[in-house]
Amino acid sequence: MSMTRADLSTNVQDAARRQADEPDGLIARFGADEPLMLDAGVALSPFQIGYQTYGTLNADKSNAVLVCHALTGDQHVASANPVTGKPGWWEIMIGPGRPIDTDRYFVICSNVLGGCMGTTGPASIDPATGEPFGLTLPLITIPDMVRAQWMLVRRLGIESLFCAIGGSMGGMQVLQWASEYKDMVFSALPIATAARHSAQNIAFHEVGRQAIMADPQWRGGRYLGENTRPSAGLAVARMAAHITYLSDMALHRKFGRRFQDRDAPTFSFDADFQVESYLRYQGEAFVERFDANSYLYVTRAMDYFDIAEEHGGSLAKAFSGTKTRFCVVSFTSDWLFPTAGSRQVVHALNASGASVSFAEITSDKGHDAFLLDEPELFAICRGFLDAAARARGLPAGAQP
Amino acid sequence: MSMTRADLSTNVQDAARRQADEPDGLIARFGADEPLMLDAGVALSPFQIGYQTYGTLNADKSNAVLVCHALTGDQHVASANPVTGKPGWWEIMIGPGRPIDTDRYFVICSNVLGGCMGTTGPASIDPATGEPFGLTLPLITIPDMVRAQWMLVRRLGIESLFCAIGGSMGGMQVLQWASEYKDMVFSALPIATAARHSAQNIAFHEVGRQAIMADPQWRGGRYLGENTRPSAGLAVARMAAHITYLSDMALHRKFGRRFQDRDAPTFSFDADFQVESYLRYQGEAFVERFDANSYLYVTRAMDYFDIAEEHGGSLAKAFSGTKTRFCVVSFTSDWLFPTAGSRQVVHALNASGASVSFAEITSDKGHDAFLLDEPELFAICRGFLDAAARARGLPAGAQP
Repeated sequence: MSMTRADLSTNVQDAARRQADEPDGLIARFGADEPLMLDAGVALSPFQIGYQTYGTLNADKSNAVLVCHALTGDQHVASANPVTGKPGWWEIMIGPGRPIDTDRYFVICSNVLGGCMGTTGPASIDPATGEPFGLTLPLITIPDMVRAQWMLVRRLGIESLFCAIGGSMGGMQVLQWASEYKDMVFSALPIATAARHSAQNIAFHEVGRQAIMADPQWRGGRYLGENTRPSAGLAVARMAAHITYLSDMALHRKFGRRFQDRDAPTFSFDADFQVESYLRYQGEAFVERFDANSYLYVTRAMDYFDIAEEHGGSLAKAFSGTKTRFCVVSFTSDWLFPTAGSRQVVHALNASGASVSFAEITSDKGHDAFLLDEPELFAICRGFLDAAARARGLPAGAQP
Repeated sequence: MSMTRADLSTNVQDAARRQADEPDGLIARFGADEPLMLDAGVALSPFQIGYQTYGTLNADKSNAVLVCHALTGDQHVASANPVTGKPGWWEIMIGPGRPIDTDRYFVICSNVLGGCMGTTGPASIDPATGEPFGLTLPLITIPDMVRAQWMLVRRLGIESLFCAIGGSMGGMQVLQWASEYKDMVFSALPIATAARHSAQNIAFHEVGRQAIMADPQWRGGRYLGENTRPSAGLAVARMAAHITYLSDMALHRKFGRRFQDRDAPTFSFDADFQVESYLRYQGEAFVERFDANSYLYVTRAMDYFDIAEEHGGSLAKAFSGTKTRFCVVSFTSDWLFPTAGSRQVVHALNASGASVSFAEITSDKGHDAFLLDEPELFAICRGFLDAAARARGLPAGAQP
């Protein structure tokens, strides 16, 4: 495992700016006549959304699948990431013949509002000042992210999504879509998620934010203008978060107490154990592709998320009258978004009379299981989408 | 909840130095003729141990209870802490009529080697240079800590401890005592602990260390000589660790998603949620009482801990021939030192033919339960010590 940063591509702000300048880049621009009303009470305008599509939209525009990405994800879900050069983050799930079959479905994935891959976020230039927004960008919520996605989906001429799917923060967006735009979501597949962020999860996010803001290079959020980067703080934030994405068992299986490149301790503060070296690498690789202020904004959006709160404390009310077909999925070893949170969603959907199926998948991979090779997840997604496609009147796919 | 630092006492290095200079302070000094052989392969000499005692040692010195403290604990277990002014950290457990009854038992608690409350650690002055050790102090292990305690216990004229007791890292020391000095431990009560540190726990410690070392004020460990303090990094380390001491349920019960001093979000990066404010306070209070380099040393000692490894991979061998009476305790909601780790210890003790009882206490308070008001823990400790006292031939205590 290499620890050098030299191998990694240039930083994410440069990449995002490059992308914004490319005429062929998939960027939807919303001008001053199309403001986005934010929950913070401000209108954001102009703004833009970076996105990718895969497959072909059918004639009656009834086969669109919206994939919602997680905290540090982006729109490059099924093709190489231009910043890291790595494969798309869900290629195992999306592509020709895959569970989300791009031979049948038109897949859309957009970078979230507040992100740093082409969509307006704190690293974007504030047209009013010609400088990066930094912390002058109003705070973003999950409903804001979904409202922006809604504007993109309408821009693409789609009046009803065949499916909204996503894990973790992506699942929060799926739930928000299903609650806010009931008539536009034919089916919904929220994975490893919850209808609100827990106190423990807020606490972990706060540690990450404090690590970033404690870094003197953060400069009160103005680091881009001052040509610095709070890389050390952002790396610590990522390391802490990364532990929560894995299970105790997964860490044990992967690393146990094995030493790095030797059989005995060095009696030093070097990365003695393999798990330390792995974590440091995760931290260092992350800062090459992610903007620190975006990390603040997007974690904050997750913290604020609480669908029931918007509906007088009743989660069932949030979904009342829904005709969406739901499939809710959790993993046994996920302690960041434990099954109990998914069960609350299922109970609320049952109470609102929704069509809902629920699967708790046995896995020891922790929260990250939704991104990994989990055949049961693939089978569930494929089966759910097949049934929904029949109900929607879409042509049958090739038999696998 | 106050957030100011002004209320808090002067920093811990000053306090430790004051204590070391006080002729009445309980400090055991070991001169050049009594070196401590460290696992790192170096002899530490001279060195000193800060400690406290409570109760009276009986004539045949058979009623001594050694209390081993956890990562950030100290010797002020049953009387006010001179740095913080707060009550001793286990007054609920230790005192006249308490489960560890100072009317019956002579209680010893010493600051661990590598600590910062009077025992030699990285903030101590290296006699060879007249400067604080910083990172030039050799790395410390749990067996080193126990070897130092052994020298203190012998210095006090005690040839056999009635009991060794402690939680978390204190429990590690208890296990090490019982394995290394079999004839000197009549009974042992390891609580919420394990015979080795897990990959997940090493990972959390590494995040804390990286947070400290990423702070420019750390100065490669030489901050004391340069009159700075890596307070921001140490606070982040404490915040991350603090989450692991509580259960998800405990955080939910204490804070839920309640906002701080208001009913709605501020849409800012202030401490909006009560749980954020609480964590920030934990971080800020901690840096006033703890040395950052000590945090590096003591976490590292826990990471290295693996009793079985010293005995060809067999935990049972580590305890073979033991005559110590054991009582092992865990808590259902402790995810830092889960019951599985205690069970491994119990299985090994069973395999080595030891006398052992085991209790998993139902609690939703997480790892910190061992420090809190847990009546079942008190009853178990009292009962176990009573029976051990009878077996030891100690006079009966007053009936509660």
